[in-house]
Amino acid sequence: MEPMLVSFLGGDRGQWSVDRMLTVIGAGLQPVQRVAILEGSDGVHVASHTTWVLRGVTSHDRYVAAEERTALAAHRAPLGRPSATAAALIPIRKKSVWWELPQDERRAIFEERSHHIARSLTYLPQIARRLHHGRDLLEPFDFLTWFEFAPRDMAAFDELVGILRSTEEWTYVEREVDIRLTRAS
Amino acid sequence: MEPMLVSFLGGDRGQWSVDRMLTVIGAGLQPVQRVAILEGSDGVHVASHTTWVLRGVTSHDRYVAAEERTALAAHRAPLGRPSATAAALIPIRKKSVWWELPQDERRAIFEERSHHIARSLTYLPQIARRLHHGRDLLEPFDFLTWFEFAPRDMAAFDELVGILRSTEEWTYVEREVDIRLTRAS
Repeated sequence: MEPMLVSFLGGDRGQWSVDRMLTVIGAGLQPVQRVAILEGSDGVHVASHTTWVLRGVTSHDRYVAAEERTALAAHRAPLGRPSATAAALIPIRKKSVWWELPQDERRAIFEERSHHIARSLTYLPQIARRLHHGRDLLEPFDFLTWFEFAPRDMAAFDELVGILRSTEEWTYVEREVDIRLTRAS
Repeated sequence: MEPMLVSFLGGDRGQWSVDRMLTVIGAGLQPVQRVAILEGSDGVHVASHTTWVLRGVTSHDRYVAAEERTALAAHRAPLGRPSATAAALIPIRKKSVWWELPQDERRAIFEERSHHIARSLTYLPQIARRLHHGRDLLEPFDFLTWFEFAPRDMAAFDELVGILRSTEEWTYVEREVDIRLTRAS
């Protein structure tokens, strides 16, 4: 699994039509009508119709342990399913104090105390998910998570997001925007 | 600790004069006479006198646990000590199979079985060290480690490098170059 650079271009073009943008905490993002997703490290030529570009890298797992990996693999769904016409893009930045924690304390908050993986598992494979890391790229957001699901699973997705926002882990989030989209093409 | 982009420019200019370049495993790097170090995210204007540029980001700890953090902090020395006129730049790329391991298995190989932190601790604070992450930047090397020490501690540094190359962790290295330098200015 080589890292892959993915760029999310907000503007008035792209495959995904924006239904709503909610600023959950911290500074928001300028409203856009469409989001285009570019995969691969080819130079992104930001055109006049692009309002913002968020970049992240698909990369190796940072907290997942061996048995969790197995459980996730058994339930994971791919992106691009024809039925999955609804999507969410959730950019998140965590507080400095999170990144200053040693690895074992971050892991304990993430899973042993917030059950990030265990609670998410229940919602797979209905919700497909891809995580992009932006922190080492000096991006404004540490994580860009892209979710795809069928419109009928939107309530379940809202429930999952609500659960994750009620955890101890989430108290370390300083900026979050929740963008909901529908496949336009 | 915000991430900071650091660029190592190999060529015929820079504060550090190259004494030797050893290809430990995998492809080498073109020989250069000098290395310049640029800190910060300002654009690196690669001039005609630059043969290669290696980039990495100082970032949060990936494996260090709480009590190891305390021990490291008690022994760590800063870069830039006047007596530390010798240096080493060791770019490393690990095999895909390493990155495909779950976090707990990478940690077990790194510390419980290879004692990367515990064995390195003995050599602090004589050896100052800064780690730069390049993998999420899609750089050719996953890590660029920069070491500074007094010339009298070179034998100790060679011993440390030899120990780390004899570990299980090191069997996951697919490319490594060992560049030794002397402060030129």
